[in-house]
Amino acid sequence: MKVAKFGGSSVANAEQLKKVANIIQADDDRRIIVVSAPGKRNSDDMKVTDLLIELGEAYRLGQSHEAPLQNVLDRFDAILEELQLSKVVLADIQSQVEKIFNDGNDLASKLDAIKAIGEDSLAKILSEYLQSLGIHARYVNPKEAGLILSDQPGSAQILDESFELIHRLRDSEDIAVIPGFFGYTKEGKLVTFSRGGSDITGSIVAAGVKADLYENFTDVDSVYCVNPQIVNNPKEITSLTYKEMRELSYAGFSVFHAEALIPAFKEKIPVCIKNTNNPTAKGTMIVSEKKDVNQAVVGIASDAGFVSLYVSKYLMNREIGFGRRLLNILEDEGISFEHTPSGIDDLSVIIRANQLTEEKEAIVINRINKELKPDTVYIDRGLALIMIVGEGMHSFVGTAAKATKAFEEAHVNLEMINQGSSEVSMMFGIKEEGVNRAVQSLYKVFFENN
Amino acid sequence: MKVAKFGGSSVANAEQLKKVANIIQADDDRRIIVVSAPGKRNSDDMKVTDLLIELGEAYRLGQSHEAPLQNVLDRFDAILEELQLSKVVLADIQSQVEKIFNDGNDLASKLDAIKAIGEDSLAKILSEYLQSLGIHARYVNPKEAGLILSDQPGSAQILDESFELIHRLRDSEDIAVIPGFFGYTKEGKLVTFSRGGSDITGSIVAAGVKADLYENFTDVDSVYCVNPQIVNNPKEITSLTYKEMRELSYAGFSVFHAEALIPAFKEKIPVCIKNTNNPTAKGTMIVSEKKDVNQAVVGIASDAGFVSLYVSKYLMNREIGFGRRLLNILEDEGISFEHTPSGIDDLSVIIRANQLTEEKEAIVINRINKELKPDTVYIDRGLALIMIVGEGMHSFVGTAAKATKAFEEAHVNLEMINQGSSEVSMMFGIKEEGVNRAVQSLYKVFFENN
Repeated sequence: MKVAKFGGSSVANAEQLKKVANIIQADDDRRIIVVSAPGKRNSDDMKVTDLLIELGEAYRLGQSHEAPLQNVLDRFDAILEELQLSKVVLADIQSQVEKIFNDGNDLASKLDAIKAIGEDSLAKILSEYLQSLGIHARYVNPKEAGLILSDQPGSAQILDESFELIHRLRDSEDIAVIPGFFGYTKEGKLVTFSRGGSDITGSIVAAGVKADLYENFTDVDSVYCVNPQIVNNPKEITSLTYKEMRELSYAGFSVFHAEALIPAFKEKIPVCIKNTNNPTAKGTMIVSEKKDVNQAVVGIASDAGFVSLYVSKYLMNREIGFGRRLLNILEDEGISFEHTPSGIDDLSVIIRANQLTEEKEAIVINRINKELKPDTVYIDRGLALIMIVGEGMHSFVGTAAKATKAFEEAHVNLEMINQGSSEVSMMFGIKEEGVNRAVQSLYKVFFENN
Repeated sequence: MKVAKFGGSSVANAEQLKKVANIIQADDDRRIIVVSAPGKRNSDDMKVTDLLIELGEAYRLGQSHEAPLQNVLDRFDAILEELQLSKVVLADIQSQVEKIFNDGNDLASKLDAIKAIGEDSLAKILSEYLQSLGIHARYVNPKEAGLILSDQPGSAQILDESFELIHRLRDSEDIAVIPGFFGYTKEGKLVTFSRGGSDITGSIVAAGVKADLYENFTDVDSVYCVNPQIVNNPKEITSLTYKEMRELSYAGFSVFHAEALIPAFKEKIPVCIKNTNNPTAKGTMIVSEKKDVNQAVVGIASDAGFVSLYVSKYLMNREIGFGRRLLNILEDEGISFEHTPSGIDDLSVIIRANQLTEEKEAIVINRINKELKPDTVYIDRGLALIMIVGEGMHSFVGTAAKATKAFEEAHVNLEMINQGSSEVSMMFGIKEEGVNRAVQSLYKVFFENN
């Protein structure tokens, strides 16, 4: 049994939904379908979820919600028209909106319920369309599916008891079409996951029914070993472990958030990233373990926007608790940090720039000077991190030599190397301006010269 | 004005003292001499300080101290005999010992006073010998020199007010011969520095008189760029900065403790390491700043006996305070750590093995499991650190590439790379068994293939 999840671009219009129907028909194992709300049809377009957020916003500000509601209805109307389906869903949306605006719930819950209309309506439309093609399919509301969530509108968490309930979906005679992104509290109130939550729903359902495969349909043929905006036509990754995926997604790989996959990871469900627009392409498999590791490096990721906080003090390493007290100051100020490379008498803390505003910077520097009495303390901005990732890396002597050679050939100075905790990755810090050059050089060394 | 300090091997017997006298005569700027107690004359010999410790031990245990005292007297007698000096010092030692055993001081202070007899007597002998050669020299007791220390027997610290007093030594008409290793509290009680404290005395006196040069006479021609027990006939280092010295001495360079030099460093007094047995050799200069940096790497150091504590937890980097809480546990258990390389979801802590006994290990692992609920936690023993050091390193693109290539050629896997905080060093972690191979390979790459 397979769970297939279709993202926003895969359900953006009638044409895309026809492809989805073909994909479902092509494989009898695709028994459970999870859908997003319709995404952009072109780069100037708006996602239906954003239209719904505008509708919610109009309500919140006490403005007329006629126009924003019409925008939502228009999007669905166009789909229904082309698929030659009844317009029942449109009336349904209107009455839902009225009901939500007039129920006794708090504002956050109302806005959650409005946002969820996109996925909910699309699921209804898709199941109806499948039925019109003679396929035994039916819309399954998340409440019926068993998605019981914590009462945190906008960032709800799945409750453990859900998985047993979801498991019963295996017994469904029909193909189940489930809207992603939302579920219900124990008290029956609609709540949503964080943005992009359809991936979370798909992953939860795949875990609950213990699927043989969780297919995640997007608009790319596969995950690439490097950002295609930096390297032209990079190689595709055919297979990736959860760990590799996680490390890559940390530094700029944006196929989806690694967190969304946790439920599937925990049950060791293999995940396949596939392209709705080219479904015969093999896609990228994400698995818990790889059998043969004949390649040290599977991917290169990069991310800019880091700063380095440098502190030095003669004989620092004799001062028990120095590092801990430094981290304490950061924690006090609500700043989370990424890494802490250290010398003998100095310590750097790598922080995402958005964590350390200029204002915070002054406070932190001042506290460090007062409380730790260092010889030197300063901030370096404009740092980028580059990661090379691969489960097999650790067993290949020479990976570090190859990588550092690549930086040298790109004439990029290494500000930082951090390797040794993760066996899956090696991390390099450089000045932001060198990122593209360095990534291109690494790609050449690891993927072209074999 | 130069301050010259002579170590234990430089004053081990009469023959060595003749060399010392020649060295003093050879340069009129050598106005202040600091001496250790006589060291070993051959590898089976005992240092006078160890003989004195035996004497103190006999007293502590209520045993006869006749034999141990005789051993001490014999060493000095042999020197006096050969230098044809009066034996007054011997009677002096005997009466000092009696006085110490019978004074009202506590045991720790008595033992300190006994230990100091070696340096004190040698300084008296040397000044008398210099006088016998017609040189204007005189013994200066540390109290007269102005060495006022905190009341911590065995690990006393210099008090700030000392430096002004010591500065008056500049006015001495005669060459001042000062015993190293000890000073006096404000109340006039004798206390010693930690072991090897003659280096501390030399450094303090050099700082106090604002010497043009502090010469540290040992038994090697210079500091070598790598341990001569690992590489045959390694190159000599002609010039080294304080920072480089500090980083090298952290990982196994044992010329002397970097801490001893702090007083000299603070006053930016240049230090020269020279050989008593070959005083015309140029030696190694340690300076605050190097003018031209035409060499990226000046030295390679290695040290075994480290362990790595590995902790992993999925989405660790979202948990604010995780790293700090881990370090807190270690601090609680009195364990100091060296470095903390980190991945996305994992963190390693590098600790000296002597800090983490098997017993402590169990406690720490247990607390981490209970308090941090990680996915994995384990200890890896048998880790060695290798450091390559050089002030110019940071400005040479390709240093990392050269270094990692050297490890590859030695077939040594890199367990850890830690670079980025110190601009003066790059640190590598490997399994202990690969140390010699790796250091030899690094030496080849950085010092032979130029």
